[in-house]
Amino acid sequence: MTTTIATTHAAEEAHGGPLQVRLAPPERREELRALAASLPRVEIDERRLNDLELFAIGGFSPLRGFLTEEDYRDVVRHMRLANGTVWPLPVTLPVSAETAATLPTHGPIALSYDGQTVALLDLTSRYRYDAREEARLVYRTEDAAHPGVAALYAQGPWLLGGEVTVLDLPERPFAQYRLTPAQTRAIFRERGWRTIVGFQTRNPVHRAHEYIQKCALEIVDGLLLHPLVGATKGDDVPADVRMRCYEVLLESYYPRDRVLLAVNPAAMRYAGPREAVFHALVRKNYGCTHFIVGRDHAGVGNYYGTYDAQRIFETEFAPGELGIVILPFENTFYCRACASMASSKTCPHAEEQHVTLSGTRVRELLRAGQAPPPEYSRPEVARILIEAYREMPTSSQ
Amino acid sequence: MTTTIATTHAAEEAHGGPLQVRLAPPERREELRALAASLPRVEIDERRLNDLELFAIGGFSPLRGFLTEEDYRDVVRHMRLANGTVWPLPVTLPVSAETAATLPTHGPIALSYDGQTVALLDLTSRYRYDAREEARLVYRTEDAAHPGVAALYAQGPWLLGGEVTVLDLPERPFAQYRLTPAQTRAIFRERGWRTIVGFQTRNPVHRAHEYIQKCALEIVDGLLLHPLVGATKGDDVPADVRMRCYEVLLESYYPRDRVLLAVNPAAMRYAGPREAVFHALVRKNYGCTHFIVGRDHAGVGNYYGTYDAQRIFETEFAPGELGIVILPFENTFYCRACASMASSKTCPHAEEQHVTLSGTRVRELLRAGQAPPPEYSRPEVARILIEAYREMPTSSQ
Repeated sequence: MTTTIATTHAAEEAHGGPLQVRLAPPERREELRALAASLPRVEIDERRLNDLELFAIGGFSPLRGFLTEEDYRDVVRHMRLANGTVWPLPVTLPVSAETAATLPTHGPIALSYDGQTVALLDLTSRYRYDAREEARLVYRTEDAAHPGVAALYAQGPWLLGGEVTVLDLPERPFAQYRLTPAQTRAIFRERGWRTIVGFQTRNPVHRAHEYIQKCALEIVDGLLLHPLVGATKGDDVPADVRMRCYEVLLESYYPRDRVLLAVNPAAMRYAGPREAVFHALVRKNYGCTHFIVGRDHAGVGNYYGTYDAQRIFETEFAPGELGIVILPFENTFYCRACASMASSKTCPHAEEQHVTLSGTRVRELLRAGQAPPPEYSRPEVARILIEAYREMPTSSQ
Repeated sequence: MTTTIATTHAAEEAHGGPLQVRLAPPERREELRALAASLPRVEIDERRLNDLELFAIGGFSPLRGFLTEEDYRDVVRHMRLANGTVWPLPVTLPVSAETAATLPTHGPIALSYDGQTVALLDLTSRYRYDAREEARLVYRTEDAAHPGVAALYAQGPWLLGGEVTVLDLPERPFAQYRLTPAQTRAIFRERGWRTIVGFQTRNPVHRAHEYIQKCALEIVDGLLLHPLVGATKGDDVPADVRMRCYEVLLESYYPRDRVLLAVNPAAMRYAGPREAVFHALVRKNYGCTHFIVGRDHAGVGNYYGTYDAQRIFETEFAPGELGIVILPFENTFYCRACASMASSKTCPHAEEQHVTLSGTRVRELLRAGQAPPPEYSRPEVARILIEAYREMPTSSQ
């Protein structure tokens, strides 16, 4: 029985209007594949494949394809599409000057991944762009050591914009967790959840995250645990290990009827504040009404202020404009004096009482085959990580 | 440093417009006291004195006095004032038929408590009312065993409506905690809190309440712990004992800069769902942006469904209409398997793992000088209660 109060807008609609599902209907695929065979062809990378999957299922609504020049400029400079709808990150299709020279200025193009046709692009905009401006405005740094900026600088100097129609995507791992926004929404409805909080993660879930998720869950109907499984930095814990951690955690510590585990095919951009907005809007498309934003959400290194990713929601948008309620959280820890999880907002005790471990220390422990204290990690999760670390090459720890 | 995101409307204004502070300015008191001496006089009871205090400080904004007939009818029948503003409970001044007969139909009247003039009433509406209708619509029962209904049936058959001007109130306990809405708002501003959650209570705070408060505090800037100290049922724990419990709890388990303890002078009505709305709006007047509503909030006996006080916010008002975000909570408990506080929404384990005690069992323990388990009550709080129970007559346990 679910009786929680919608503290907000029900996400009846996707962001900016109805869901934009860009997957070709099955009955048209044959014909479109035949068409694709006769078209100019552009080979895409994994990052763009992640984007195509999100276009296919509507996760990037209201986008119907890669940004055109007009939309691109406004997104980079104002975090909005040309029509004024909030959109914080460029979703673009870069190509080399050589490739650009072989393409028409407009008209249909085939996109292939690993040699296989995956989508059609109705090219309407072929344009050059200023990668340093994008780096500065989107990533807040021009430093090539930033992984998002590095990826940007490695791109070709031309962008192709236009609507996409996805035909076929290669087999991807976690098939049973690749729920589309239409599927998650159907499950939410079926379970009677009217308020749903989304939790973005690209790391194993320790008790700090569990506490944050459960604090939020206490005031909404359900939790969408939505790890990102697209391209990430090489040193993040591999997605399959993280998935096993989530599975065992949910099995042992969460009521089955209050949590849905599904994956977000998006790639990480590490764009900090802007990516926090992006993460929120994508989850709105999946049907979430609330979204958790922690400290330094989607950050990397020291490029962003601790609270920048929370502040951006206040400083850049009108109240209610995003159509999803942001739940901002502090770092949390187990406090021995409180005998509970807490944060600096809820615990008055000295640091000596807090069970906190650096990421480095946790990796050391796990690598040595030792579980972190149970106040830090659930033993079931620690066991999986220990086993994984045993098998991992040292570089990806 | 406070960085929480306003998930909602900032409570810039009081409910229905600016704060309505009905305390006479000091420079006019002398003159008004002199005027009062020459006026017809009505003696009021403690409940009405509680109301006058709330009028004086603006806690009942937008009300400027006791309800006139027109407002009364709409409040009872539609939970709104005649002008459409939401107002869920009648705030009325009842008198006996004999008293009514001695009064003019309109014009100024003096109100006295314990023989001392406390306020002027600008009488504009003198009317009879249907107590059974009020009982049925407001309390959802005509049963005289309901304490709110009993108080209603014990009232005189006439109501006096009109604006009040408060002159002097008798000394009241907890003077340092009797903060006015203007004062709490000033403190919130000073501390940089933009989002504040209000917590209504008329009972000692156990760990279940602490957990709920802290869950909410994790997503807002500050907590207003706002116990009600007006008239309550005789068997509730006395307000001074409760205040000592709050003090020791805050001192030991809450960061000083995240919580404000102040008292709400209102009387309890035990009107369940309608009183939950009333509690929320009064806290909005104190500057809260969020308000916690638990199971059976403001309920008594079995007159209300477990979730009625949460549901009313959804069924009776348009989204955003109340201008305060409701945070609905389930009952919570310590779970040994989770090794933390939890609710049925966040814990999957069997009841044997849960530390739950009935109110009766807790009173038994305290009366026997034994502290409930530390997972149920903080030992500091238990000590105060044990001491208090030792001194209390058996009837008020």
